[in-house]
Formats: sequence, C-alpha cells, structure tokens
Amino acid sequence: MSASQAAPPERLTLDHQPNREGPWRLQAPAHHPKDEACGFEVLDDFERFNQANDIYTRGQWDPRIRSEKVINWFKGMFKPGLGARAAEGYTARDFALRNAGWMGANLTIQRSLSEGRVDGFLDYIRPYSAPSPDRVESVSPEETSEEVKRVSRLFGADAVGITHYDPRWHYTNSFSTKALAEKPAAIPEGLPHVIVIVTAMHYEAVKCYPSATAGIAVGHGYSRDCELVQSIATYILNLGYRAVACVNDTSLAIPYAIQAGLGEYGRNGLLITKDFGPRVRIGRIHTDLPLVHDQPIRFGVREFCATTCRRCADACPPKAISHGAPTEKVPSQSMMIGIRKWQVDPERCFKFWVNQATECGICMRVCPYNKDTSRWWSRGYYRFWRRLAASPLKRLALRLDFALGFGARMKPAEFWRRFRTR
Amino acid sequence: MSASQAAPPERLTLDHQPNREGPWRLQAPAHHPKDEACGFEVLDDFERFNQANDIYTRGQWDPRIRSEKVINWFKGMFKPGLGARAAEGYTARDFALRNAGWMGANLTIQRSLSEGRVDGFLDYIRPYSAPSPDRVESVSPEETSEEVKRVSRLFGADAVGITHYDPRWHYTNSFSTKALAEKPAAIPEGLPHVIVIVTAMHYEAVKCYPSATAGIAVGHGYSRDCELVQSIATYILNLGYRAVACVNDTSLAIPYAIQAGLGEYGRNGLLITKDFGPRVRIGRIHTDLPLVHDQPIRFGVREFCATTCRRCADACPPKAISHGAPTEKVPSQSMMIGIRKWQVDPERCFKFWVNQATECGICMRVCPYNKDTSRWWSRGYYRFWRRLAASPLKRLALRLDFALGFGARMKPAEFWRRFRTR
Repeated sequence: MSASQAAPPERLTLDHQPNREGPWRLQAPAHHPKDEACGFEVLDDFERFNQANDIYTRGQWDPRIRSEKVINWFKGMFKPGLGARAAEGYTARDFALRNAGWMGANLTIQRSLSEGRVDGFLDYIRPYSAPSPDRVESVSPEETSEEVKRVSRLFGADAVGITHYDPRWHYTNSFSTKALAEKPAAIPEGLPHVIVIVTAMHYEAVKCYPSATAGIAVGHGYSRDCELVQSIATYILNLGYRAVACVNDTSLAIPYAIQAGLGEYGRNGLLITKDFGPRVRIGRIHTDLPLVHDQPIRFGVREFCATTCRRCADACPPKAISHGAPTEKVPSQSMMIGIRKWQVDPERCFKFWVNQATECGICMRVCPYNKDTSRWWSRGYYRFWRRLAASPLKRLALRLDFALGFGARMKPAEFWRRFRTR
Repeated sequence: MSASQAAPPERLTLDHQPNREGPWRLQAPAHHPKDEACGFEVLDDFERFNQANDIYTRGQWDPRIRSEKVINWFKGMFKPGLGARAAEGYTARDFALRNAGWMGANLTIQRSLSEGRVDGFLDYIRPYSAPSPDRVESVSPEETSEEVKRVSRLFGADAVGITHYDPRWHYTNSFSTKALAEKPAAIPEGLPHVIVIVTAMHYEAVKCYPSATAGIAVGHGYSRDCELVQSIATYILNLGYRAVACVNDTSLAIPYAIQAGLGEYGRNGLLITKDFGPRVRIGRIHTDLPLVHDQPIRFGVREFCATTCRRCADACPPKAISHGAPTEKVPSQSMMIGIRKWQVDPERCFKFWVNQATECGICMRVCPYNKDTSRWWSRGYYRFWRRLAASPLKRLALRLDFALGFGARMKPAEFWRRFRTR
C-alpha cells in the first residue's frame, strides 16, 4: 500500500486516523492493469475511504453536518408525517409514495438495527444461513457465470457484471449507529469474485426531480436491490459456496460496477450505464463461487462529459458538480483522497437535500444518457443518440437532446395523473 | 352467528374448541346479499375456520401429519441442502432457485419469529409505524380507491380489488410456533375495508410442476407479495389512516379475492383470476381509509368447471381434487365446515408435497385458464379462448386447449435453458 500523505486540513476522523492497516489490507497494487480501461486515475497518495466520512454517516456524528433538519431528514424516510408541506410534489401524498417505496429496504435495514448494525447501508447483509454442506461442482466458471447472470435477471436485475475483489474500493472503517463510533469495515475473507448488479429506477419518477414524489425511484430501487442481492446470495449459498450481499455498505459501488463492465464514470459522479444511463441502483455479492470476470466497457461517456456536456453541472441548484476537468483536489472530506476524477461536493449536495426534506436527483434526470429504454421506439432513439454522442457530432447530439425536450422536469401532478406501472 | 352443529368425528382442535366467540364476533349474517354473485353457498352450520386446522399448521402439532419428512419440508425452504437428489428438477440447483425465491418472504417471516409470531403466515404483519398524525382528507372514496389501485400496481400488483370486511373469512384462532399452542387470531378492530391484491406467478416456472424448479414461482410470489402489501400499508399509514397487511395469516384469501371482484372459485380449490387464471398469489390490506367496493365478477369458470373440465382432478397424482359436484361434506378437518363447494383433500395434497420435498402445483399448471398473458399474441388467444369456454362450445374449448398442448409440463432442463426474465 502506498504511504499516505499528510491529511488535508479539513479532513476529520472521529477519534483516530483511518484504519490504514484494517482487516482488509491492500492485496493489489494501487495501480491495476485494468485501471486505464476503467478510466481510473489512482495516484500515489491514494487512501482507502473511511465510511465515517461519507456525507450520510457524517449526518450521524459530525456537528458541522448534523442538525435537527438532518435528523428529521433521516427519520422522515420511515416515520410518517415529516417533511410534508403545501407545495406540489411535497405533500403528504408524495412523501407517502416515497416512504412506501422504502418499505422493502426497511425490512433489511431493521434486521440488526438493535445491534447497531445497518445491514445494506453500513454493514454487509448477514447471510441467513451457512452454505450448503454439499457443494455443487460447477461445470465451468464460464457456464456458472452465465447462469448466475440469468438467475439474477430472473430476480429482477436489469444488468449484471462480474469482477475481481479489489481492496482499494473497500472502506477502512464503517460506523456503529449504536456506539456512535467508527468500527472496522469488513466482509468475510477469501471471497475473490464480485457480482455487481444494477436495477433501473422508475423513468417517470426520476423525471420529477426535485420532489418527494421522485423519491419512490430511490426508495423502491433500494427495496428491490436489497431483496435481489440477498436472493442471489441465497442461490449461491444453496449451491454450497459462500456469498455476502452488499448495497451501500462495505465498499464503493461505482468503481466495482465500472470494473464489472456495467458503465463509465460521469461528470455528475454517477455510474453511467449503457442502457439506463445514471438511472440505476447498484448492489454487489462477494463470493467464492468460481466465476469469470467481465471487461470494462467504453461507449463515449468520458469524452462526451469532458468535451461537450455540462448539463448536470448547469442544472445543479447548489452547484455541487464541477464544470471543470478531472482533478485530485477534493472539495470535501467526504470525497476520496488520491483519485483524479470529476469531483462533486457532497456537502453542498446534501445540504440541498436536507432543505428539500428529501433527496435530489436533478443530475440524474438531466443527463442525456437517462432515456426510457422500456419501449422499442424510445430504445431505438436512445441507441441512435448514443452513437451520435460517441461520434464527432457530440454538439449536435447535445442540441438534439435539448430540442427534443429530454431532461425536462415532469410536474408531480402530471406524474400522479399518468405514471406507468410497468 | 349461526349455532354450530356437532363437530364431525375426525375434527380435532388442540386443547379446546375453536374460539367461536373470538375477538372478531360475527357482525354480518352468515348469508350475505353478495353471496350468490360470488358463488358462495354458506350453510346454516357454517363455522369460522381455526388456522390450527390448516394443513401446514397441523404439520406443526398434529402427530398424524407431523413427521421427520414434514419437519425437513419446512426447514428445506430456508436451510440449504435439504431435499436435493439426483433427479431432473430436484437437484441442488433447482432447490437453490426455489430457496432464493423465498428469500424476500423470509425477511418478513423472520421479523418476529423469536416472539412466536410468523408475520404474513400465522400473524398479520405488524405495521412499522403508527399512522401519520396529519390525516390527508381524501377528495372522494372513488378517487382514493382509484389512486390506491394505481399505487398498488406501481409497486407490482397485477390486479387489485376492494371489498368490505367480512368476519366469516377470519380465522377464529391462529397458532404460536413458540408455545406450540393455539392463540386468538385477530387484526386490530375498526378496519372496514379490505384491499385485495394479486400478483401473477412466473408462467414458465409454473409449467415445470411437479419439480423444485417450479418452486421459484411460489417463493418469489410470496416474496413480492410480502413486500407489496407492506408497501401499500405504508402508503396508507403515511396518509394518516390505519392499515394492516396480511398474506396467508388472519383470514381466508380466496373468498376475499372473489368478493373483491378478482375472480371465481375453481374446481381445484383455487382462485381463478380473469387474466392469470389460478397462477396468482393473494395479499390483503385491512384499512379505514375511505374506499368504495368492487363487485364480484363472472366469466364462466363456475360453469366450465361444473359441466366440462376435470383436468385438475384427472391430473392430480394423489387424487386430492374431486371429480364430483360441490358438496358440504368435508374430506378432512383442514377444510371448512358449512360451505358447499368443490372440496379438495389437503391431507392427500400435502402428503404428496412432502414426498416431493417441495410443493406441487400441477392443478395450477393444467388449468386451461392458466395462460401466458404477457405477450400480445398469447393474450389475444387467451381472450378468444375464455369467450369460447364461456359459450355453449365449452367442449370445443377444452379440446382446442388439449390440441394446442397447453398445460403440458415443461421439463426443468428446458426451463433452465430458456426461462424468461421478464
């Protein structure tokens, strides 16, 4: 592991430095042969991330983030009646829809809450059982990989990729909501493969950002994800192999998804998938089931964001998204040290969320890669547009997108009138 | 409530008679004006059902049902490695798929297991929160009903109906898996409306009955149902009304579904829905949200089963389904007293299940109302067929169905090669 540089002035930890020699020591060089294909620029002063520095976790302990409003922001997801007001998209009915969306995730979250664990968000999801003692010998890792992908799709995954365990993306520390203190972040050892799944969020709901109405896209996305990763893990346990399911906990979802060939990194700090753009949630299953790995993909996002499109940055009300070039200069302690990339400012972003009493996803809505791909005609248009955006006619692609009205906000009242149920 | 007759000789309760004056006294006459439209023939000696007499519950306490095999049958759903054998459709991979399907339901089941509750199966699902203190005044019960139905569909319901609370369908008693004893069955009082939802099960999986492979249809169906009813309940709680979600617990799903206009009762003892035939799972939400009620529907099932079709009865290996006419003579203590209907024998049925180490659904597979309605061409054919089966040309409809090969078993190996993921 590369020696870490002096911490930047604003960078805090709770009561000790990040656990740099934590339970998951770096077993791979900071620079991986696949990094260029992935678009990762990992620098020599790279440090693994401490989840206690994540903006949501700081909402639990950091007095500069935590406030009455923040406490209600968290509570409001599960407790009826918080946040609602007489504004279109923010009424009790809109929050009701959002909170109903979170219900499924709540089933996972509540599992170990009394022990200070938040399964799926701060802690890996504890498997319900040990692996079957009778191990099914796989025909070949290629066939097994194909089968796991099809089973994942049967359970609702919209795309699946497989990659290798990469300690760089694993948090040094997590956080105990009971002790209100850091704790080592870990998954069980000896799980060399990572199945990464993405599920698409509701297209029309995302079109409603900013609003509480749109929150169903995130809530229901998490609900589907939580069940899905546990279903896949259960499948693998029943084959006699180990499997640990993760959602927001344990490691960084985006670099894993990029390594697994599911998309590229966008200016808005999100994973841009080929079929659903940034409109996805990401889950992971760590396993020792013998699998083969996918290769990173490129379909023009990096170049389009770099040379042509600033739409997310222009549209962000708290100006949390950079108009500039990738840099290693972090705007906040909630961003990773030692990676050159498009930076976003989670503090500005989260402050806006808290003022809305619900999360925002404007950068997801306005991204030209966010298109409806559920109907053949819109899918066809998106494929055409994607090729145009990857060609030298990038400006034309962006102008066409504007001209056709993509990325415009749908009024929540309109959503309520005509939302699609498939 | 009508006076009950002497119990038939084989009818047992655990240690006392069914709680006939239980927490939910009959508040409606045994004969309801809607009964004829529903096809219910409720007799004067009608008794509410005691869930302890349900065949699955008897697997917990009745020495005539409980055995090592039965214990493993229950365990096998959650514990990897039980039941698998070297037979197509019953290998570890098939059981793995089935058990992965149950994972989501397990999240609900496990919630209160340590207290002897089995949420969703023996006990109503405890709401996660009290209703919002700020009640949203509904514009009209008609509009609210329409909205609740659309929200239910957004969360994955395939059909939704609304009916009135009917104490006849509520269990007198439930069962505590901790005390291994009966306990009163109850939902909170004062919830006059019942939202009934059905979710369609995977068409190709159901085609694989009998097999463990097919079990994903049931397992994943329950998983979707458990999350769905809780999501709808959460939506209602957030509007400031009370809502209690049920799946297999608390009351009889089928009569409620029939009252709510979701289908008819078939010879196989299952709800036959208009769009998915018997291939559904059923959930319910009891609420005081002001709603309007749906009317029962008729589309020819009763006449078709009565005069023309014996396919389920012919196909049932343990001969648990009657070839005869509706009768009030029960073949087992696990059937209700005082209802004239097509009887099935849950003891023969369940014995077959246990010998397979997984449930059976042959009667669901072979039913001519079980058709794929996810593609326009098959949906079109089914609509045509349904009209034919409701016309005087019933025999032709049945013969056509045979000739076209509907109802035939799909080999599990074929399922694995080409199952559809949507």
